[in-house]
Amino acid sequence: MRDYAEIGIGREARRTYHLRDISIVPSRRTRSSKETDTTWHIDAYTFDIPVMSHPTDSLAGPEFVIEMDRQGGLGVINAEGLWGRQADLDGAIARVTAAAEESEGEGVDTPAANRVLQELHSAPVDFDLLAERIGEVRASGATVAVRVSPQNVREFAPHVIKAGAELLIIQGTIISAEHVARGGEPLNLKEFIGSLDVPVIAGGVTDYTTALHLMRTGAAGVIVGSGVNTSSAALGIEAPMATAIADAAAARRDYLDETGGRYVHIIADGEIESSGDVAKAIACGADAVAAGELLAPAAETPAGGYYWPSVAAHPRFPRGVVSRPTYTGERPSLETLLHGPSTSASGRENLVGGLRRAMAKCGYTDVKSFQKVDLALR
Amino acid sequence: MRDYAEIGIGREARRTYHLRDISIVPSRRTRSSKETDTTWHIDAYTFDIPVMSHPTDSLAGPEFVIEMDRQGGLGVINAEGLWGRQADLDGAIARVTAAAEESEGEGVDTPAANRVLQELHSAPVDFDLLAERIGEVRASGATVAVRVSPQNVREFAPHVIKAGAELLIIQGTIISAEHVARGGEPLNLKEFIGSLDVPVIAGGVTDYTTALHLMRTGAAGVIVGSGVNTSSAALGIEAPMATAIADAAAARRDYLDETGGRYVHIIADGEIESSGDVAKAIACGADAVAAGELLAPAAETPAGGYYWPSVAAHPRFPRGVVSRPTYTGERPSLETLLHGPSTSASGRENLVGGLRRAMAKCGYTDVKSFQKVDLALR
Amino acid sequence: MRDYAEIGIGREARRTYHLRDISIVPSRRTRSSKETDTTWHIDAYTFDIPVMSHPTDSLAGPEFVIEMDRQGGLGVINAEGLWGRQADLDGAIARVTAAAEESEGEGVDTPAANRVLQELHSAPVDFDLLAERIGEVRASGATVAVRVSPQNVREFAPHVIKAGAELLIIQGTIISAEHVARGGEPLNLKEFIGSLDVPVIAGGVTDYTTALHLMRTGAAGVIVGSGVNTSSAALGIEAPMATAIADAAAARRDYLDETGGRYVHIIADGEIESSGDVAKAIACGADAVAAGELLAPAAETPAGGYYWPSVAAHPRFPRGVVSRPTYTGERPSLETLLHGPSTSASGRENLVGGLRRAMAKCGYTDVKSFQKVDLALR
Amino acid sequence: MRDYAEIGIGREARRTYHLRDISIVPSRRTRSSKETDTTWHIDAYTFDIPVMSHPTDSLAGPEFVIEMDRQGGLGVINAEGLWGRQADLDGAIARVTAAAEESEGEGVDTPAANRVLQELHSAPVDFDLLAERIGEVRASGATVAVRVSPQNVREFAPHVIKAGAELLIIQGTIISAEHVARGGEPLNLKEFIGSLDVPVIAGGVTDYTTALHLMRTGAAGVIVGSGVNTSSAALGIEAPMATAIADAAAARRDYLDETGGRYVHIIADGEIESSGDVAKAIACGADAVAAGELLAPAAETPAGGYYWPSVAAHPRFPRGVVSRPTYTGERPSLETLLHGPSTSASGRENLVGGLRRAMAKCGYTDVKSFQKVDLALR
Repeated sequence: MRDYAEIGIGREARRTYHLRDISIVPSRRTRSSKETDTTWHIDAYTFDIPVMSHPTDSLAGPEFVIEMDRQGGLGVINAEGLWGRQADLDGAIARVTAAAEESEGEGVDTPAANRVLQELHSAPVDFDLLAERIGEVRASGATVAVRVSPQNVREFAPHVIKAGAELLIIQGTIISAEHVARGGEPLNLKEFIGSLDVPVIAGGVTDYTTALHLMRTGAAGVIVGSGVNTSSAALGIEAPMATAIADAAAARRDYLDETGGRYVHIIADGEIESSGDVAKAIACGADAVAAGELLAPAAETPAGGYYWPSVAAHPRFPRGVVSRPTYTGERPSLETLLHGPSTSASGRENLVGGLRRAMAKCGYTDVKSFQKVDLALR
Repeated sequence: MRDYAEIGIGREARRTYHLRDISIVPSRRTRSSKETDTTWHIDAYTFDIPVMSHPTDSLAGPEFVIEMDRQGGLGVINAEGLWGRQADLDGAIARVTAAAEESEGEGVDTPAANRVLQELHSAPVDFDLLAERIGEVRASGATVAVRVSPQNVREFAPHVIKAGAELLIIQGTIISAEHVARGGEPLNLKEFIGSLDVPVIAGGVTDYTTALHLMRTGAAGVIVGSGVNTSSAALGIEAPMATAIADAAAARRDYLDETGGRYVHIIADGEIESSGDVAKAIACGADAVAAGELLAPAAETPAGGYYWPSVAAHPRFPRGVVSRPTYTGERPSLETLLHGPSTSASGRENLVGGLRRAMAKCGYTDVKSFQKVDLALR
Repeated sequence: MRDYAEIGIGREARRTYHLRDISIVPSRRTRSSKETDTTWHIDAYTFDIPVMSHPTDSLAGPEFVIEMDRQGGLGVINAEGLWGRQADLDGAIARVTAAAEESEGEGVDTPAANRVLQELHSAPVDFDLLAERIGEVRASGATVAVRVSPQNVREFAPHVIKAGAELLIIQGTIISAEHVARGGEPLNLKEFIGSLDVPVIAGGVTDYTTALHLMRTGAAGVIVGSGVNTSSAALGIEAPMATAIADAAAARRDYLDETGGRYVHIIADGEIESSGDVAKAIACGADAVAAGELLAPAAETPAGGYYWPSVAAHPRFPRGVVSRPTYTGERPSLETLLHGPSTSASGRENLVGGLRRAMAKCGYTDVKSFQKVDLALR
Repeated sequence: MRDYAEIGIGREARRTYHLRDISIVPSRRTRSSKETDTTWHIDAYTFDIPVMSHPTDSLAGPEFVIEMDRQGGLGVINAEGLWGRQADLDGAIARVTAAAEESEGEGVDTPAANRVLQELHSAPVDFDLLAERIGEVRASGATVAVRVSPQNVREFAPHVIKAGAELLIIQGTIISAEHVARGGEPLNLKEFIGSLDVPVIAGGVTDYTTALHLMRTGAAGVIVGSGVNTSSAALGIEAPMATAIADAAAARRDYLDETGGRYVHIIADGEIESSGDVAKAIACGADAVAAGELLAPAAETPAGGYYWPSVAAHPRFPRGVVSRPTYTGERPSLETLLHGPSTSASGRENLVGGLRRAMAKCGYTDVKSFQKVDLALR
């Protein structure tokens, strides 16, 4: 039974929970972390670790995507970012970080850097340039996942699939199965996904109903969250991730029953700020997480430790800012960030090691069963 | 059923909620923000956006009121402020901001600036001067709304209506339908409002009973809140806005039933600190909001970005302080503040754009139906 | 029904509330603050305002006590403080404030100043010196209230009463009716109070049972709280004041019933940090408040704005620190602090004006009936 | 009945409580603190005070362990720390503190100091060196308690017992009775403990089930908590101590019943940050506490006020950091820290005095009965 409070006469609000509100409770036989298996199977693809990256140019340069593959995860390219818009990709990114650097000390808001992002994104997409860059990654042998927005998926999908995309990520801030597409013509996601040769991961959803609808479109995975934690000030909308993930997991359960066995993966993209959050997201029901700013310190990223989510470039109403580097010294390799060893107790390094240790200490050896671990409100 | 806690043996307190305690939950088909309609009809007046300004000289100079009209909203003149008391209005305001500037860095309290406000407000009101200035705005074609206090409404109303006021705002910190007026003679608001030719918006109320009583006086709108968020330290009184708005909406529902169809508007004047708060206030049941400090950065305001609520000038017990500008760089136009485009992710720009996007993402196209959107406790 | 949570298997904890957790809710016809009456009658004494001072040398020099009387309140002399121990009272106080000043910037803890207090309090009490100083206040015509600890009351009471004390305040950090006195011989408070010619106010209690026991001793008033808000770190003991006051009010109600009409006053001594807190304490059931640090800025205090509670001088385990002045500019008179007018919106000036306005806005005209005002959890 | 919240559809989380969430409520006859008895009897050993030290080289040099004994408590040696790994113990510790000092001002994380700890702990244990140093303490007449990890207990126990250990502390971050030991061969703790001649204290547990299992192994005491408060970021695991202690106390009760009278002691090792926390831990059900950083200021510690928990040296995933000294001036003796007198109101000195006063004020005279004192949620 869901828990509601009456906030005023005749008006109720549901109690919801952030990942930071909960914690994992060990209550079974401890295991060794060496016994744990973090493999993530989705459709025909298998990843050693249940981690993909949030689609943003601040992470996914070619070097990063290739290294994510080597480290067992999935780097996601943003087809609507700068890859197809700016011939000089490094120069474009340097302009963003320079603008952020100049506004250092002016608080968390970075209008100057957002303005540069808006300007860079106002350039049209050159599909040949985009295809060339996607092809470069494909050539390395890494699994190629490309993100497009629901608004533009019809136009972009053929190009990116032709260029080598093996997984299509259809991701907008909030998506429903029936979003009215640009130009007034609605996009029937079910028909569209059915017409594609590649598996689709779609999102981000924040509630049971939308999650269930999206599962019914035939998506292989559903993203929960929008990769941004700061939207409440702008829109008043907020979907605390512990509740959103658990609700989507309930939809997965019901859809599994409804279809007699079709399992749709849930990827958590929001509030993932430490290895503990990776473990908590899975404990709430996620099959994998999309990590964003947590991966920004990696030496393989193109933005020198700066980070922005894809929505920070919105032309009229940016959400999310350009964050400054959290590391002052030498930046760690993606391998160290993901697998350690670490000299830090912050939970921002050895992310998969943290997940493994959490699973082991609670007595679980695989990701799926760890979804049942006991939880507590802190 | 309202939710009470026993704070001590035999003593209960009701649980109440701030706008910051709640968030909006999307659970319907997403729309395009271009489909949304933010029109606000009250009495014979129609505004493109459900936004009026809190009555304070720090916002409502003539230029600001006229521009608010152009941008689709309603700028409110404070008849008991400086317009009728100070021949040199700009000079008077400059004295306030200079006093606030000098005390920079002395914490949030600004006794020196409050002292200047007290002194400036101790001058008597010259009704000719006030009428002349109101007439100037009227001449521009902008809708003229003027605020008077319940204590002085009998004396001031004839003057301001004659000068051109088309909407009378009777607003005190807390008002009831039976407030005992200055001099011992009680003001019967119902009879008084009935005797006027212009529609009245009255407030601010914070509870169901007073809201219902005020609706019964014939007011076209009821203001919820006092435009100040800091009163708890001074008086121990606080009415968290999510609860206060929802309670007033319950009174509106009951009054609609009682009268067989008379709809009284609810305007939220408190805790409106971002575009997200505008959306939340409406989601709780408001028809419109009164924005205060949120509009202070506009280039059209007379106080250079400084802000104070009308109660900051109280002769013996000021509530509210003179806040310093939040913008360090160039100040945006009122148009940008209200309609964007914005380069900021702070929720303090493109206020109406934020409301539109919130409505669209939740699948609502008009303000009235958006009052039913799902809510969550964060 | 009290509200308990199970913190662990088989172990419950009661939910308790601070004054800061609650707020006052207006829901009746507004009054003018001029109609309010703040008179406090206790035993044969009548005070214009329901405010006494916490017994500490940092407030109660002779000048302060006499001025408190003039302003309608009650200044309380600490018989176990420095008055009877230090011939050079001003010099002693100056040593304390100098030690506090020197440790400025070292955090809230002030061991050096506590050490000076400990040393000054290790001097024996010269009862002739104490009597002389009490007599000086008595000669002014001010009501003389003197505080002694439960441990020393038997020894001190005859001296201070002879010297002119008209009200005896028996106050220790936590007191019960059966505290075992120094030397092993228990003090029967009921017999002791019965043997005195002056009314007694005793405390501080924090729960229903002890409050009821103390009422049964014949005390005219019971103090709730210990004047210190920081004890949780030292002892783990904390009694949030909203709950403690309401519980004591329940004891007052039951004792009134048990005795067929004997009314024992409740004085709140803790968490009184603003005029809003004065109103909240009364709203929870207090008849009066003991103000401490809130009165320290008064020009009439001997410690230049520095403040310490009486327990800060404990020889082995001081509780409470020496706080530095909160006013940087000119210090206000006690009259301004209590009655205004004020130029500050902080709630730290015009304390009684704030109480009056809170009562008036909620539609109450006397302190006793204001104890029934509606409350909310913030 | 335990209290659960539904965090999402079909997913519950138990409400849990930190020591900081609760407070002790006095409701009985006040006693003198001189009447209190803090004796702690465990197995054949009796300690004047219910305090042992967390096993870390930053506290337990030989001088500290000997002085803890003199002051009535129990200093615990970490057999897997530096005593057996570094011939130049002082020099090794100096390298850690120097690394921490150099990174001053870089936030709470101290990767450089953790790296030095990792390097120093990568040296093999020289059992002769370890035995020699343990023997030195034994020669002083102090009770010798030595900590080993569950992973290494089989290898280390014979050496440390032979060297003079009178109490064996088997402590890992989280332990179960069936932890699979290194090399795949499980350690049957019950058989192992039964084979030893010395009493065992084992932990740390955080839940009822593991506590009960550990009691059934024959341990004389069970440690609740891991001595670290910051693990949530790293692993997502957190066991708030008030709940964890109360749950373990429930297990003690059930085990007492199951065995017809075998009483297993509970030692709280976590969230002990002040004398108030010592009292609260016992109030929740602990028989004694393990103090860590709270003892670091003692002049007898080898690390000059720096502190780290034993897990800070983990080779791949350190938890806990090297904390800098909290005292800027002269460091107090262990005697002053534990028994006062104190000039500080911070609750970080006179720890046992604080416990005694808390017991006395609540009307309890011994530690065991104080476990029943009333609790409140703050």
